[in-house]
Amino acid sequence: MKWIGVVDTMFARVDMGGIAVATLRAKQDFGARFDVARRTVPGFKDLAVAAKRLIQLEGCEIVLALGMPGAGDLDRTCAHEASLGIMMAQLITTTPILEVFVHEQEGQGDDARLLAICEDRCAKHALNAHDMIFDAASLIARAGQGVRQGQADAGPIAIPIRELVEN
Amino acid sequence: MKWIGVVDTMFARVDMGGIAVATLRAKQDFGARFDVARRTVPGFKDLAVAAKRLIQLEGCEIVLALGMPGAGDLDRTCAHEASLGIMMAQLITTTPILEVFVHEQEGQGDDARLLAICEDRCAKHALNAHDMIFDAASLIARAGQGVRQGQADAGPIAIPIRELVEN
Amino acid sequence: MKWIGVVDTMFARVDMGGIAVATLRAKQDFGARFDVARRTVPGFKDLAVAAKRLIQLEGCEIVLALGMPGAGDLDRTCAHEASLGIMMAQLITTTPILEVFVHEQEGQGDDARLLAICEDRCAKHALNAHDMIFDAASLIARAGQGVRQGQADAGPIAIPIRELVEN
Amino acid sequence: MKWIGVVDTMFARVDMGGIAVATLRAKQDFGARFDVARRTVPGFKDLAVAAKRLIQLEGCEIVLALGMPGAGDLDRTCAHEASLGIMMAQLITTTPILEVFVHEQEGQGDDARLLAICEDRCAKHALNAHDMIFDAASLIARAGQGVRQGQADAGPIAIPIRELVEN
Amino acid sequence: MKWIGVVDTMFARVDMGGIAVATLRAKQDFGARFDVARRTVPGFKDLAVAAKRLIQLEGCEIVLALGMPGAGDLDRTCAHEASLGIMMAQLITTTPILEVFVHEQEGQGDDARLLAICEDRCAKHALNAHDMIFDAASLIARAGQGVRQGQADAGPIAIPIRELVEN
Repeated sequence: MKWIGVVDTMFARVDMGGIAVATLRAKQDFGARFDVARRTVPGFKDLAVAAKRLIQLEGCEIVLALGMPGAGDLDRTCAHEASLGIMMAQLITTTPILEVFVHEQEGQGDDARLLAICEDRCAKHALNAHDMIFDAASLIARAGQGVRQGQADAGPIAIPIRELVEN
Repeated sequence: MKWIGVVDTMFARVDMGGIAVATLRAKQDFGARFDVARRTVPGFKDLAVAAKRLIQLEGCEIVLALGMPGAGDLDRTCAHEASLGIMMAQLITTTPILEVFVHEQEGQGDDARLLAICEDRCAKHALNAHDMIFDAASLIARAGQGVRQGQADAGPIAIPIRELVEN
Repeated sequence: MKWIGVVDTMFARVDMGGIAVATLRAKQDFGARFDVARRTVPGFKDLAVAAKRLIQLEGCEIVLALGMPGAGDLDRTCAHEASLGIMMAQLITTTPILEVFVHEQEGQGDDARLLAICEDRCAKHALNAHDMIFDAASLIARAGQGVRQGQADAGPIAIPIRELVEN
Repeated sequence: MKWIGVVDTMFARVDMGGIAVATLRAKQDFGARFDVARRTVPGFKDLAVAAKRLIQLEGCEIVLALGMPGAGDLDRTCAHEASLGIMMAQLITTTPILEVFVHEQEGQGDDARLLAICEDRCAKHALNAHDMIFDAASLIARAGQGVRQGQADAGPIAIPIRELVEN
Repeated sequence: MKWIGVVDTMFARVDMGGIAVATLRAKQDFGARFDVARRTVPGFKDLAVAAKRLIQLEGCEIVLALGMPGAGDLDRTCAHEASLGIMMAQLITTTPILEVFVHEQEGQGDDARLLAICEDRCAKHALNAHDMIFDAASLIARAGQGVRQGQADAGPIAIPIRELVEN
């Protein structure tokens, strides 16, 4: 049994962890090949150490770190610090932690829009985490395809006549 | 007996550590299940290593790091450095350190307002620290609820008809 | 047999990893002196830990980390975080990781231009990686020559009469 | 015998290390309870590793890192990097390093003013370092008092009727 | 025999490593008390790990890391990342690495001026590196003297009547 960690915040205005957990529980191999460990922390600056604990103390092979930074100037600096913490936690543990942030400003003042972004991004990254453990080749197959989470894919730049890659 | 660390600064204009310690001492299980270790350092850039020392040399399982950055341009850069230090200290020790900063600018020039923010934020985060050790499930129950410290909660975005999470 | 790692993203709109791999496979000593290990991750913030894994778990002696940051304000902060992660991964592993980023804004809105930059930069850095392992002296010979990837070389500043260096 | 480290720069335009050393030598217990180790480096970016060496190779229990960043835009970025280095050095060694920077712009073009700030800040932080080793309780007694170095204390915000802290 | 490391870039438009090496080879004790190890990397973001390798794999006691950041906005962010890497490399190895950056903008569009800055700064820092190993006291003697590299010294602020330092 492999473990996928999910950590989110009380600060966010959407139950981001709940979306990710629900997506993972809907996978056919849930409970058979993998299980989910969930934690919640006060704010997004607390995600990094919580993710590290899920890896080191709970044995998770990958973690989703979910947060919703506010729109103010100080919030952006805080989000930067939180991101650097998540980066450091990955490097110390040699384990991937997918940072899934939905910035409040992305909602453009529309709660329904913000919620829709959260649902799309959290769910897609939950699937990415699953693929990274169980189907790494499927990511190589999508390399350079302009894949997005929280919005429609940008798609690849049209490839000119000669084929770029042959391997 | 578990230990909660509290470290604050001489620089701040409010006895932030005192507020946190008073809040924790008022808990029913104070002295029974947990005790508090307090330190004070010159400024907020000195908090990170002091928190690390409370963890590594004094055995604290969580630390509150309390500071009051000034409003100037240089102060904001310094606060950013202090925050990154607190982030690194958490990751090195695999132990949560709650950063509790009240930015002088939040008071908008009104000392009473600044004091009220300090009291609310320091007290709430002291309770968060307690919950993180003794009642982690209560944090999951509040995931995505727009919980705030130093101001009223923002609350969750109204959930549409279908329920998002079932686990 | 030495291993060169290549890691790129699904987020990029060009198959940057494919370009690098194709360039390396075209080298005469491919398969004889060296082989290539390829991974793909969701976005550029996931490159650092993936590169570290290629080094520590797959035995790569150098890694190419390929990404395409977007043009928005948040994208630039994210790219900065990704770069710092790649820097830290190098220092923890004592192994070079060549960061090969093509910023979407470099294309100036022209996809063909963006693609051309990708092809030039990814291919040249793939050759640089090869030289760093098998022909380090060739890099010293080009020191201070204004060498560029993704554009024409800037060239050296014309040297005045007396020769600067004699060693 | 405990050791206090002092490291400053050739770049600064005031002998900041000299001020700190003179302050420490004037303490009654100098030579009895503690001694001072002094180093000088080219610029403030060289302070962090020098401080770490004073701790790890010379056995210092605390270090004063003294520098004078210039007023230009690049200088501010450099000062930020120097500060982050000092932060990291503290966390790696679990030992406090007091960063004592006097920004050239604080002098507002007046050398006498800049010198006065240097004298006040370097001397006060030298005394802080001494207190942190020999009288930690005196710092707790000054928590939240708006203590400043290089200028007059800001003082605490007037406390309302009920006493905030009782412990 | 002690080793001084020199690492520079192909990106720079001046052979900065050549200047440093020539300066060191001109010292009377070259080949007797110390020798020089030189490496070249593609760009300045590759300096940090190369410097670390010179220290850990080649036994250098100090390293000169020489680079020439461009004038663009992205270049400045990259230079910041490169600097942080050099800072981290120093702290991990407990060994000084002198960062010698000449920013293209310092030349103010004049190649001769840019070259002159490179020659002055690289040569002076090469001598600083030598002094740091063989004559540390000479640095203390110049503390607070406003010493500069790449331009004339700023000099110390005139000292008022009483002598500041007596030790």
